[in-house]
Amino acid sequence: MPRQKEQSRQSQRQCGDVRLRGFSDRASLADAVAWLDLQARRGLTMEEVSVAAAQGRVLAEPLNAPADLPAIECAAVDGYALRSSETEGASDYNPLLFTLAESPDAPSHALPLAGAIMISAGSPLPAGADAVVPFDATQSKGRVLEIFAAVATGAGMERRGQHVRAGATLIEARRILRAQDVGLLASAGMDRVPVLRLPRVRLIVAGPKTFMDRPSAGDAAGPMLAELIARDGGLAEPAHPAESHRDALAQAIAAPGADVILVAGRTGTGADDEAPRALAQVGELAIHGIALRPGGSAGMGLSGVIPVILLPGDPLACLCAYELLAGRLIRSLAGRSPELPHPVQIAKVGRKIVSAIGFVDLCLVRLVDGLVEPVASVECGGLASAVRADGFLVIPAPLEGYAPGTEVKVHRY
Amino acid sequence: MPRQKEQSRQSQRQCGDVRLRGFSDRASLADAVAWLDLQARRGLTMEEVSVAAAQGRVLAEPLNAPADLPAIECAAVDGYALRSSETEGASDYNPLLFTLAESPDAPSHALPLAGAIMISAGSPLPAGADAVVPFDATQSKGRVLEIFAAVATGAGMERRGQHVRAGATLIEARRILRAQDVGLLASAGMDRVPVLRLPRVRLIVAGPKTFMDRPSAGDAAGPMLAELIARDGGLAEPAHPAESHRDALAQAIAAPGADVILVAGRTGTGADDEAPRALAQVGELAIHGIALRPGGSAGMGLSGVIPVILLPGDPLACLCAYELLAGRLIRSLAGRSPELPHPVQIAKVGRKIVSAIGFVDLCLVRLVDGLVEPVASVECGGLASAVRADGFLVIPAPLEGYAPGTEVKVHRY
Repeated sequence: MPRQKEQSRQSQRQCGDVRLRGFSDRASLADAVAWLDLQARRGLTMEEVSVAAAQGRVLAEPLNAPADLPAIECAAVDGYALRSSETEGASDYNPLLFTLAESPDAPSHALPLAGAIMISAGSPLPAGADAVVPFDATQSKGRVLEIFAAVATGAGMERRGQHVRAGATLIEARRILRAQDVGLLASAGMDRVPVLRLPRVRLIVAGPKTFMDRPSAGDAAGPMLAELIARDGGLAEPAHPAESHRDALAQAIAAPGADVILVAGRTGTGADDEAPRALAQVGELAIHGIALRPGGSAGMGLSGVIPVILLPGDPLACLCAYELLAGRLIRSLAGRSPELPHPVQIAKVGRKIVSAIGFVDLCLVRLVDGLVEPVASVECGGLASAVRADGFLVIPAPLEGYAPGTEVKVHRY
Repeated sequence: MPRQKEQSRQSQRQCGDVRLRGFSDRASLADAVAWLDLQARRGLTMEEVSVAAAQGRVLAEPLNAPADLPAIECAAVDGYALRSSETEGASDYNPLLFTLAESPDAPSHALPLAGAIMISAGSPLPAGADAVVPFDATQSKGRVLEIFAAVATGAGMERRGQHVRAGATLIEARRILRAQDVGLLASAGMDRVPVLRLPRVRLIVAGPKTFMDRPSAGDAAGPMLAELIARDGGLAEPAHPAESHRDALAQAIAAPGADVILVAGRTGTGADDEAPRALAQVGELAIHGIALRPGGSAGMGLSGVIPVILLPGDPLACLCAYELLAGRLIRSLAGRSPELPHPVQIAKVGRKIVSAIGFVDLCLVRLVDGLVEPVASVECGGLASAVRADGFLVIPAPLEGYAPGTEVKVHRY
């Protein structure tokens, strides 16, 4: 490339118009991530939801136990409640005899001396009892109960507050509520839970290019991004197909009501790639062009205070840019970890993996006999490569790839 | 325990009434799993859903590409389409000149000799062109385009069928559809997808025991199980609270319309533990009592051909029995892997873990500085232990636990 051309490219200011020129001055992925993390600091308000709808939501503040759990002393097993001291000396060869009392209607019902009362797990212990002997350690004959072993104080029972004491933290803030968390909240008698509001994500799919019968990239982006947004804890508005000319895109971006806006398509260097100009028209284009492959034509900026992420129209590039950029912002705003949400597996490279120096490469891989192999060339396979892949590597910009045998971190689909 | 008692217990036939006696003859977890896997062989029918609703569903049959992807030769980058042979000899010091033609309205529009046509990524290549040069490797002056480097045939373009050939498998059967799969199907112009029907799961929560203000186990089981069923690919009917007496439970079990029935609560050895008898009344109680801790009072059987799983009412025991028993059946029927769905992490034990010989123990653990530590005693903490846990171990029946330093498989929540 001629020297004078190189210079003219460097003098182009960042976020200048890349159309018919190319990206001369890409932002590093680290800079893009820093910009996104800054936007995420705004945070979201909280709302209350019912316990039944709370699973997968992020707890907005720590929840304390409103009361002891269990609230009273109760049986942990089915069997007979009795006084442990009265079982002293009992053995297989010296069964001790107890009198079976009627099961109490109320736990204030007292246990008679040398008495035992049948009890179900979870039921309150009758006054005086301090242990429960399970049925299979006993033998009953009418109203006489034989006990074959001494039991310790507290055996077969749960003490008041043994699981959680009143006022103690039931669940820490920022926990993504799991099935057992929801169960515990319901156990503790809670109806409603304070959770972070879901970030509302507007999804603007730039109008498809009108070429014959070739399926347009826009067709893939809508359903794909909707699923990714939901995975990351966002609330995707129904996809918003816009005409691809600048004013229509600008209008869709400027409309109120979203916490994050994604525009898919029209981010490249073609004459009709109007998404960056549309954002600049109604707000600020902060970054356009990132040293990332695929997905390098992505961009970002603000419409008022609302972050807008521009994603490439090519489906695979769109997927990659979503994962490393838009997804990070949505996860952060949702109160989740900003890091990639895929399970990570450490594995060794089986076949050489090539990467471009200066670009962060998202490399699609398969695991073959436990070894990591690249899926064809990312440039060749399109979204079908991601369908064939078991996961991906994120290869740092300074590296030119990995030799066989290198240990790498696979983000598994 | 006296010898004669031991004998009388062994003579009790399996699935006899355990009430007021205890479990004398527990099934092994392996036997219970074998029974569940046998039921899962029945399988489910398929249905068609829209591509937009297909994410997370299990593909019922392999999907083949209806056409080549891409359907025609097209540009992979923004730039200028031209004949690669005409760039031979071009270099920084020997730029070759091309005439810019108007962009074609139709791809049949032919490329003039020594001509170049501006093109956007994804657009069809004009007839005659066999490469695309990106903007940043060119310089245009009016209708004259300078090219600074020779390009190879096929550079910057995608060949017809390069991603997927017509008729080739797009996605294998039994894949749980991911965001990129949905995107690819949309790309390929598919509207509807054949997926396995979701197993309909009836959730019968046995009426809570009526003890004072102690929150009953039933309160936790409903919301907790609903989330677990959804996670495993089942379609939970709204929880079906039943009176706890035998006839009411039997009636709820016998009602038609479910593929799997879960009954939570009333499985133990207490006088009022009627769930096993209710199942035996309307169908067959195959197994009751499993060498599993917690969760050992679980059972299973058939109502007609419909599998019915009895889960303990204690919330933690219910969770454990769900994970190892009911969840396995639901995952299998949904066409998913029957194995536990949690991400697995191999880690070393930091603090001695004790387990009962003869029982499979589900041991709740935390990861502290990368080492595995048990969460209190499972018997002490109730569901709160599972809330505090990072995951769990499944300790085989022959082991009495793990010494510090042992490598174990943590199923992470």
